Amino acid sequence: MAPPLYPEYPPELSSNEQQYLLSNLKDWSIAHGLAVRPAPSFVSQQQDPSGVLATTAPVTLFPSPFPRTCFEEGLAIQKAYNELYSAIARDEQWLQSIVEELIGIDDFVAKLWQTHLAVKREGYVQDLSLGLFRSDYMVHSDPLNSRTPLVLKQVEFNTIASSFGGLSSQVSTLHNYLLAIDAYPSSASTIINADALRQSKSASLLAEGLAAAHIAYGASQSGRPLCVLFVVQEPERNIFDQRHLEYALHAASGVRSFRLPFHRTLKDTQLDSNRTLIYIPPNSPSSAYEVTTVYFRAGYSPDDYPREEEWTARLRLERSRAIKCPSILTHLAGCKKIQQVLATPHSPHLERFLPDEGVASRVLATFAPIYPLDQSDAGLEAKKLATDPNSAIRYVLKPQREGGGNNIYRQSIPTFLEALPETHWPAYILMEMIEPPPLRNVILRNGEVQKGGVIGELGVYGVCLWRNGSSKGDVGEILQNREAGYLLRTKGDKSEEGGVAAGFGAVDSCLLVDV
Amino acid sequence: MAPPLYPEYPPELSSNEQQYLLSNLKDWSIAHGLAVRPAPSFVSQQQDPSGVLATTAPVTLFPSPFPRTCFEEGLAIQKAYNELYSAIARDEQWLQSIVEELIGIDDFVAKLWQTHLAVKREGYVQDLSLGLFRSDYMVHSDPLNSRTPLVLKQVEFNTIASSFGGLSSQVSTLHNYLLAIDAYPSSASTIINADALRQSKSASLLAEGLAAAHIAYGASQSGRPLCVLFVVQEPERNIFDQRHLEYALHAASGVRSFRLPFHRTLKDTQLDSNRTLIYIPPNSPSSAYEVTTVYFRAGYSPDDYPREEEWTARLRLERSRAIKCPSILTHLAGCKKIQQVLATPHSPHLERFLPDEGVASRVLATFAPIYPLDQSDAGLEAKKLATDPNSAIRYVLKPQREGGGNNIYRQSIPTFLEALPETHWPAYILMEMIEPPPLRNVILRNGEVQKGGVIGELGVYGVCLWRNGSSKGDVGEILQNREAGYLLRTKGDKSEEGGVAAGFGAVDSCLLVDV
Repeated sequence: MAPPLYPEYPPELSSNEQQYLLSNLKDWSIAHGLAVRPAPSFVSQQQDPSGVLATTAPVTLFPSPFPRTCFEEGLAIQKAYNELYSAIARDEQWLQSIVEELIGIDDFVAKLWQTHLAVKREGYVQDLSLGLFRSDYMVHSDPLNSRTPLVLKQVEFNTIASSFGGLSSQVSTLHNYLLAIDAYPSSASTIINADALRQSKSASLLAEGLAAAHIAYGASQSGRPLCVLFVVQEPERNIFDQRHLEYALHAASGVRSFRLPFHRTLKDTQLDSNRTLIYIPPNSPSSAYEVTTVYFRAGYSPDDYPREEEWTARLRLERSRAIKCPSILTHLAGCKKIQQVLATPHSPHLERFLPDEGVASRVLATFAPIYPLDQSDAGLEAKKLATDPNSAIRYVLKPQREGGGNNIYRQSIPTFLEALPETHWPAYILMEMIEPPPLRNVILRNGEVQKGGVIGELGVYGVCLWRNGSSKGDVGEILQNREAGYLLRTKGDKSEEGGVAAGFGAVDSCLLVDV
Repeated sequence: MAPPLYPEYPPELSSNEQQYLLSNLKDWSIAHGLAVRPAPSFVSQQQDPSGVLATTAPVTLFPSPFPRTCFEEGLAIQKAYNELYSAIARDEQWLQSIVEELIGIDDFVAKLWQTHLAVKREGYVQDLSLGLFRSDYMVHSDPLNSRTPLVLKQVEFNTIASSFGGLSSQVSTLHNYLLAIDAYPSSASTIINADALRQSKSASLLAEGLAAAHIAYGASQSGRPLCVLFVVQEPERNIFDQRHLEYALHAASGVRSFRLPFHRTLKDTQLDSNRTLIYIPPNSPSSAYEVTTVYFRAGYSPDDYPREEEWTARLRLERSRAIKCPSILTHLAGCKKIQQVLATPHSPHLERFLPDEGVASRVLATFAPIYPLDQSDAGLEAKKLATDPNSAIRYVLKPQREGGGNNIYRQSIPTFLEALPETHWPAYILMEMIEPPPLRNVILRNGEVQKGGVIGELGVYGVCLWRNGSSKGDVGEILQNREAGYLLRTKGDKSEEGGVAAGFGAVDSCLLVDV
């Protein structure tokens, strides 16, 4: 690892300083809904059967230093990323060529594709699609040459259920508040100051994206009032993150929304004869709503489909006239396989979707080299790199499937592959490890304060609303394309898995530094 | 009891309706800081040693119907009440005549008075006083004649540590939100509708009161930055209520404030040679602040003074140049004895302080008859009423001291007095019971839903800033006088004690009805 960029960070706190910071942080977070429902290991269901307890969301005590140029580049290219993934989702033929490679390996992708095909046979009745995207990056420092400028490298691109947009706005406000009340020692003011903090407006901007789709849907087909449907998992510990979007949508645009647990879809919705999606609130069955927009915060993981009924549910939603956020094609566009195909060295694909060369090259610069494990030239090169312990140490092996977890790191790769029949290898991609500069921070989680080396992951949100194009030659058009704030997730550098709600990290905000 | 005014209230909910309402209420409350720290009986200190858990504050599921005329009268006369109590606090001679009757009986009043006298001997250096008052009422229906119009009767007037101004704003917003998302059945829309709900702006208005004092204090004497000091109890379960005022003060006026646990006063403050009050934050001893305003959320109960040091602390604060909210004289003006003297039938005192006859008569109309238990004519009459079980049944016996609790009700009064030496009787007042019209509501507390008969208590907040007047003939003047929102506290009608944080009630909002 390179030497720390910020050797003095975070500032050391005396016990009085830490107490002041923590007591203010703990109260502010609850007063402003920077919260989660406690983990069962912290509060058992037996103790709180009706679920009224909440706790501060895992957060960093300090904003994390982040290279200004990297931060600004990440936000600046989000619109290009929105354009890219919208174009992919609109190119069914190209998508099909990729997905077909996965169908024999990945049942989940296969089922999604079949669901799309079933709707296609019948004909889609909704031409609009909404994407609330999040492009995740880490800062990469060349391990062989510390003088090479730091750059942003993409970890993954999320096209479904991009989370933490609600809490991210709150944590940047929290860090700003802590600065304003002098909870950060004045000795640190050269690095922690108001000019360097960056507010994330993700909650309001994502809500504006939902409102834009709601409006673009147009007039009610059924004469019923209109609503947005949040399709959710149940129970949901990270509920306040989602609720902040609901509240922002309601407060700023007056749009009604409902939370529909995914497993209740068949019970609580129906399709009219013209495939208008009707939501029947269980609390008020006589006052049904027409759904303009289906916002998936569930349905992204095979675990969400324990029965065949959930696939029937997904089909119903996809068949409907409601705008999907995302459509199945957009969901599939987020496959790691797509990321890999785009990031395979000398890939011709990027220019297909981003015809502007300057834009394409800025996006390309954020790709870490990614290899398939197939019979292509790049695949054969990758197999060599992955099975040799000397080279494998610079790589990570990732399943194509969405949802995080199950990554195989560095020296574990050769033995893992050895135990796996080679016919299954194409279900994985090989990616060069991103080497973030060492950093330290302090995290509050479940009331425990943990200090140590951390890794930050920048997520940039994007809102994209487009028309898919209904016939050959009509490739559709983008109606709205916006960068929509950011998320910084910070996790201990000993763990190599992400995801704050799963207990492996904390929400954070960016403190821009010139390096 | 009279027949219920709202026999159909609250609407019956199906289990689906209740689930919808509750899940929205539980999430909204945490997302917006309508919360308390859980009671030790719910979450032990051992389980959550660092105190990160929170829970929904005890709240009513529905706003409570409240007679429109009573509500409007309560708000309309708050400025008169502010004027009244400001005038009392400025009339030291009159106050002394009342307090002297209590000194032999009530050690706490005696100590407060001695503290005032000590400062007076030296001379006060601050001529301004701030009151953040709350006048508490119940609706009274004549038990003998149900056709008599409902009227508002005062329960007590708080001149120190008036609580729930922070949460009250939130609960009225909550009920409005629940209405907007159709959590109340449409069958109830003739009674529960947006026109009938009343938003309380207590949090922002009380914060504006603190800001007004902060500004009126003027320039820094010491050259140090200025701040407001919240003098608090520790631990404080109702902390978010207080925090909302802090946040509103900071967000709207940019005023810094600190929380000073009362028991740390001598450690963390000092007086300059000209009695400027300096606060030394333990987290940053080198950056001391000059205190413009001392806002007491502690110090109102004898329990806050376990050692002589706390009296030394109160003396230091009172001696200081900071504006006190409240001063000791204002604190003493809130004695129940004062209320009793004003409300004793045919008392001459009210017109002394409220020379406008029309204003005085409106205030007088809100008094329930209150009797001393002394040797006066009214006192002798009271002793007769209190010791006879047939008449005692319409009365409550209350200690003169502040802080709630220890009231003796109805048939318990004669036996209680029998056991008390008659020399101690003057420590109590006898008050005609207010007979509120029967009402039902549903309360969520610690995750439990309780439904039943309830009693509502309306609190009206007032902000009053005045100059005390420094010499004979100069009686001072009121600089700011505002009504500052309201609180509705609702408790089960079987319990006869109030106070939500103590676990005996819930915060609520008013649904105005014409009766």
